[in-house]
Amino acid sequence: MPSTSSIIPEYEAANAEYAASFDKGDLALPPSRHVAVVACMDARLDPAQVLGIELGSAHVIRNAGGRAIDALRSIIISQQLLGTREIVIVHHVRQTPIYLCSAMLIIQTDCGMLTFSDLDLKAKVRKELDQDVEHIAFLPFGDVKQSVVDDITLLKKSPLVLDVPITGYVYDVKSGKIEKVAA
Amino acid sequence: MPSTSSIIPEYEAANAEYAASFDKGDLALPPSRHVAVVACMDARLDPAQVLGIELGSAHVIRNAGGRAIDALRSIIISQQLLGTREIVIVHHVRQTPIYLCSAMLIIQTDCGMLTFSDLDLKAKVRKELDQDVEHIAFLPFGDVKQSVVDDITLLKKSPLVLDVPITGYVYDVKSGKIEKVAA
Repeated sequence: MPSTSSIIPEYEAANAEYAASFDKGDLALPPSRHVAVVACMDARLDPAQVLGIELGSAHVIRNAGGRAIDALRSIIISQQLLGTREIVIVHHVRQTPIYLCSAMLIIQTDCGMLTFSDLDLKAKVRKELDQDVEHIAFLPFGDVKQSVVDDITLLKKSPLVLDVPITGYVYDVKSGKIEKVAA
Repeated sequence: MPSTSSIIPEYEAANAEYAASFDKGDLALPPSRHVAVVACMDARLDPAQVLGIELGSAHVIRNAGGRAIDALRSIIISQQLLGTREIVIVHHVRQTPIYLCSAMLIIQTDCGMLTFSDLDLKAKVRKELDQDVEHIAFLPFGDVKQSVVDDITLLKKSPLVLDVPITGYVYDVKSGKIEKVAA
């Protein structure tokens, strides 16, 4: 393991500062704008900043890749118990791979979900942890726009998801811009 | 359905403004602080603000309740492919229920996961959507501190999760404060 210092003292100090000036303690439980956002867990993507999400206005569901099937339990709860009636999906990419000198080396800065196959990761878990994970679908994808289309389609076809507007975007971690993807 | 206007024009306008002054396009894919945060999707909780998470420093995984079992695919990817070596769990509560007048009515402002049972939601989905969801565990909980302890225990016992520091908090949406929960 890399020798890293724990983040805990920093998080606790930051929270003390946050709480000291916190003045939004009266927000209601149901999201005020009736929206559920499904986004990748990527460290370079902060959905609240990227979309200007106001506190109290939207559920934000995040997982590796921002995959819809993995968000299904949360989406059902969001719609059935807390009244959200719109879904926004954000996957992401950095559109310009960086080539170093004339070598073939590419610094991979796209979504991590584009960097491996399901079989690769199953093999790695078997080697590193001596565990069989045939029962887990890791949901990588080869094309980020297609993954957004696939996830919109999955939600639109699911009998467990209400027929609500669903909009998909690809976020570019290099430019900070979202690009709408037609379903 | 409630008649609500779509959030899309606002999100796109906010993103245009965000991108116009965006200057963090060179962040690396692996989280710089090697941390994965697992938090509830609740609209009143913005993990980046609450913990002072800097862009590029941590994976943020969010689902209904911030449940660890639902985050397992993402945690494995985070650790095995992107090198995170610390986990922070944030569930939440509003500690002061509001009683209206002398009636028994309680405005429920705790985590939505405290407001229903698995059987309740399965019955609701059957009634509203005419679908059987016996195969989905909705993972509600009766005690938010216990749910943090349970999730830390689950991750510590899982052979699919590396033996890394795991810290759990309950976030109070009324005060903005986090409280550490002993595992």
